[in-house]
Amino acid sequence: MTDVVIAGIGQTEVGEHWEISLRDLAYKALHSALEDSGGLKPQALFVGNMLAPNLSNQAHLGALIADYAGLTGIEAATVEAAGASGGAALRQAYLAIASGMVDVALVVGVEKFTDKIGAEVEEAVSTISDSDFEAVQGMTTTAQAALLMKRYMHENEVPAHGLAGFALTAHANGVANKNAMFRKAIKPETYSKADMVSDPLNMFDVAPNADGAAALVLTRRSLLPSDFNNSLVKISGSAASSDTLALHDRKDMLYFDTAQLSAGKAMKQAGVILNQIDFFEYHDAFSIYAALSLEAVGFAIKGKGWKLAEDGAIGLKGKIPCATMGGMKARGFPGGAAGVYQAVEAVTQLRGQADANQIAGAKTALIQSLGGPASTAVSHVLQRLDR
Amino acid sequence: MTDVVIAGIGQTEVGEHWEISLRDLAYKALHSALEDSGGLKPQALFVGNMLAPNLSNQAHLGALIADYAGLTGIEAATVEAAGASGGAALRQAYLAIASGMVDVALVVGVEKFTDKIGAEVEEAVSTISDSDFEAVQGMTTTAQAALLMKRYMHENEVPAHGLAGFALTAHANGVANKNAMFRKAIKPETYSKADMVSDPLNMFDVAPNADGAAALVLTRRSLLPSDFNNSLVKISGSAASSDTLALHDRKDMLYFDTAQLSAGKAMKQAGVILNQIDFFEYHDAFSIYAALSLEAVGFAIKGKGWKLAEDGAIGLKGKIPCATMGGMKARGFPGGAAGVYQAVEAVTQLRGQADANQIAGAKTALIQSLGGPASTAVSHVLQRLDR
Repeated sequence: MTDVVIAGIGQTEVGEHWEISLRDLAYKALHSALEDSGGLKPQALFVGNMLAPNLSNQAHLGALIADYAGLTGIEAATVEAAGASGGAALRQAYLAIASGMVDVALVVGVEKFTDKIGAEVEEAVSTISDSDFEAVQGMTTTAQAALLMKRYMHENEVPAHGLAGFALTAHANGVANKNAMFRKAIKPETYSKADMVSDPLNMFDVAPNADGAAALVLTRRSLLPSDFNNSLVKISGSAASSDTLALHDRKDMLYFDTAQLSAGKAMKQAGVILNQIDFFEYHDAFSIYAALSLEAVGFAIKGKGWKLAEDGAIGLKGKIPCATMGGMKARGFPGGAAGVYQAVEAVTQLRGQADANQIAGAKTALIQSLGGPASTAVSHVLQRLDR
Repeated sequence: MTDVVIAGIGQTEVGEHWEISLRDLAYKALHSALEDSGGLKPQALFVGNMLAPNLSNQAHLGALIADYAGLTGIEAATVEAAGASGGAALRQAYLAIASGMVDVALVVGVEKFTDKIGAEVEEAVSTISDSDFEAVQGMTTTAQAALLMKRYMHENEVPAHGLAGFALTAHANGVANKNAMFRKAIKPETYSKADMVSDPLNMFDVAPNADGAAALVLTRRSLLPSDFNNSLVKISGSAASSDTLALHDRKDMLYFDTAQLSAGKAMKQAGVILNQIDFFEYHDAFSIYAALSLEAVGFAIKGKGWKLAEDGAIGLKGKIPCATMGGMKARGFPGGAAGVYQAVEAVTQLRGQADANQIAGAKTALIQSLGGPASTAVSHVLQRLDR
């Protein structure tokens, strides 16, 4: 099999796009990605979306977006795995290209939260939790993350505000990302004085729901014209894993099994070990997810993931840079698009186009998209191909 | 590449399962399929579902069902393409197996309509239509099908009750299918005296929304043990295509482009021509869809698909048997499971296990799953492998 490569990337600004429809958002991102690919012609479209049937009263996004983008006739479907929908759509596209049955595939992650407001959004988001055992009791994903965080801090003797480093890093990195929702660095006091959402989880422990779309063009390296101009990025590892939706059935709710399993498989396939990973785009929908992901993947021992944030190890010049373009906290969390943003941002880094946020000499990235508290995890290893 | 085969099938009865939850339905079907496969161990689960986020307040079905089935850890995601979700999930599983990255994949189609009632169901179903241009005007999928049917009958001078043959055939075939929702044959008068739903579309032109789940186990032939006991069915062709959701943008709304394109590609891949197709499982969510599918695939010239139903050509002993186990009209229409039921039923036929409904010597089947008025079409050619 020849290499599966990412030949084009595109994204919209992340934020509150009251004036733009879901299909327009998707179109903007995919149009940029196709242009960036030098005009490759996709045969298939994989849409990563989490909640449009509820938030935007619109299912059947595959055909809708393909048509709206002038690609009527191509194969199209939506892939959903809660917050990991973007990663799962990338995974499906990867499998399609690897199968040899599809030559050029388009991945579009898109979500529009501003089609609904307040309680409607909370109700929609609750559908990704276990409806019969958690959501029905009024447990929201935020409340669930707060419980995880409380237990984590208790078991590991984390001081108050001990997880502040995740938000500080994300907001520092968001400043120079013109597509980020929040472009202001924050101070430790900003975190420690922030309003509580669900004790001990404050406003800066939660990534903001946002509108946005990101897109990728995948193909096999052998199919690219010899004059292809973009730096090529190879998908050298791809894997996914699933766990319970509800927390009560897990042996250890403070260990993200799927994050470990999927990252381990993806790295094994890529033939890389942890210290070859130049940066890690984790799924920081909540700061506690970031801490647990660092531990599951192996960058920190159990209970010490938060230390990497406190010590600056996840900063742009740290040992393992994370959320390099602002992460979900500062770039914003556009649901099913989030996992595609991670890939777009990783490709930007690997191409050396990340400007002020550039990780010097970045060659290998690990990106990981989670659904719920790692009920789904999809991991990809991306590598710059030198020609 | 070695052959991609269907090594196990499972299904629940189709009907109103007020007492069984969505996850239980899925479990029953997948458990049967795994048992039927002789205990193959799946590494991936592809869930075909259309409306659970609305109908059952439950998204994130991949991880939920994997866990509930005792398969925690495997890769899992939901594939959605409206009524074609089942076909699209099968297509994704096919690509995964063909890629060589997944050895054994489970496809589960599941839908539960009885979690909601009346107007809530209608509202949920409307999300598969174009929300901004059709659904917002109050156009339901049924009203849309009625408009298509009216235009079809007008342009082709079809007499009143001219499409009765589709329901008559489906109900005749449903009698002996113990999993069918309706097991009573109907008479021409039953059709002609039926209550009108949306003129000219009467109650017998619409497949009933229903609860149900069906499952398939896919693998590569080379991975099967030599003592594998089931008759093997190969997926020899697989293709999908998309079109506008709304009808107003189509050049000819009475021609299902995607049905033609996807069937043509699948047959080309399989290396078969029309007269080698022993039976055709079309998507008869509405009788007019069945007529238009027969024409698009090429079994009838444009405007004459209804004649095949009138003449008995689609009967079990006809020229091109269709809806051989009752189709969506009599077996019932469990949304995202419908396309998986088609595959399960086709495998049953190809294995020679269809009892009273058996198509003598059936070796090659075409199955086609539609989303909306062929806004999505997914086609597969299945063939019995002689050993």
